[in-house]
Amino acid sequence: MDYICRNALSLIFLVAAAIWTAAPLTAAPPQDTDKPNAHVVPTEQKDSRTIGIVLYPKFELLDVYGPAEILGNLGSRMKMVMVAQKAGPIASVQGPQVVADCSFEDCPPLDLLLVPGGFGTLSELNNAALLDWLRARASKTEIVMSVCSGSAILAKAGLLDGRRATSNKRFFQLAVDQGPKVQWVKEARWVDDGDRVTSSGVSAGIDMALHVVERLYGTKTAELLADGTEYQWHRDATKDPFARPTKSN
Amino acid sequence: MDYICRNALSLIFLVAAAIWTAAPLTAAPPQDTDKPNAHVVPTEQKDSRTIGIVLYPKFELLDVYGPAEILGNLGSRMKMVMVAQKAGPIASVQGPQVVADCSFEDCPPLDLLLVPGGFGTLSELNNAALLDWLRARASKTEIVMSVCSGSAILAKAGLLDGRRATSNKRFFQLAVDQGPKVQWVKEARWVDDGDRVTSSGVSAGIDMALHVVERLYGTKTAELLADGTEYQWHRDATKDPFARPTKSN
Repeated sequence: MDYICRNALSLIFLVAAAIWTAAPLTAAPPQDTDKPNAHVVPTEQKDSRTIGIVLYPKFELLDVYGPAEILGNLGSRMKMVMVAQKAGPIASVQGPQVVADCSFEDCPPLDLLLVPGGFGTLSELNNAALLDWLRARASKTEIVMSVCSGSAILAKAGLLDGRRATSNKRFFQLAVDQGPKVQWVKEARWVDDGDRVTSSGVSAGIDMALHVVERLYGTKTAELLADGTEYQWHRDATKDPFARPTKSN
Repeated sequence: MDYICRNALSLIFLVAAAIWTAAPLTAAPPQDTDKPNAHVVPTEQKDSRTIGIVLYPKFELLDVYGPAEILGNLGSRMKMVMVAQKAGPIASVQGPQVVADCSFEDCPPLDLLLVPGGFGTLSELNNAALLDWLRARASKTEIVMSVCSGSAILAKAGLLDGRRATSNKRFFQLAVDQGPKVQWVKEARWVDDGDRVTSSGVSAGIDMALHVVERLYGTKTAELLADGTEYQWHRDATKDPFARPTKSN
């Protein structure tokens, strides 16, 4: 009896799970921005996109897996590819290793591109293979994103010249020094400059990812994803409790 | 000149990074609970602990990497081991594969143990190898933690009997059905019951991890880690914006 009961409950859960999974896939067409938001710029409607998340040795775990959690829950609307100079396991700053699905060379066409930060940023600023690959891909990509010190890498590649951008608040100057032609925003949870969207440190990447989902798939979809992950979305990009003075202040 | 300048800046960054890394390692002895908090229970002082984070097919990414980000930034004070039934790559619900460092058999002694949730929970509820391993390890572990539907697995293993615990709010009933002898708390960001600490859904695991850091290493250390990841810590375990009615309400 207990066994039957458990199996019945499992079935109910499976159905509920299917509804949960399906919900974000059907709930919100791109035009459902029922709450007008100055930060939302409507973009091209697409049924499915591919995002490439760049991995490198000593990347920051949450820079990658915060946005990956949000974007990965879009189901068939967002294919996720982990890409690195070489495919295979790569160790994060915090230790855990994750698998890069493909190398720069083998990477499929991308609609979105995300560069995380982390202590590995320092070495990557001098990695010509990464900088060249980013330059080559950025022009073919709908949105290039960064989390934390990832914007220092984008700036070094020249991909933020003339753009508004932000970065990790503890090491803001590092980003500033890589891109003298960038309009650095010192107080921002994230900055949306059209095809460049950059976030502040680490967990700010989750808020940025929800913003990008809102922009691409509508407010309701973003809200469903935030609710499903029990995440209190910081919806105002200009509110930055971690902003602090930098050298150039 | 530009090259010299860049190298000088890199050196400054490296020093700053070293200070950042070292800060949480030296800043806060366990007794620094300068802000009294009813939820903080002082526990044994240890210089170094090992946490085992359990991976299984279709685990939820942020259930693992939220706490891993926080605990992983404790440096030498927290060794992190990813453990699964078999060592090697394991795919998450969202797709990305991560590497299990060791199998249940090869897993070193653990001080802390964390079980994530995710759709894979459904299969794991019937995985005797996992349930047996958890039972065997729990009695030798300082704190057994879960995130999201991970508490359903702990309940099924009988590890929450007579204890206060919580779970994901969308599928709370699944957890309740696994543990009729558990005192389920429907409105909680996390629940601390001494050697069992369980969190609500997905991102609540970050708040729980910070709480466990506060309990083990003091308030200042937890605050440093939250600040370093630009995370607005939800410090009140009883405030739960995602609580919702369940069948048994």
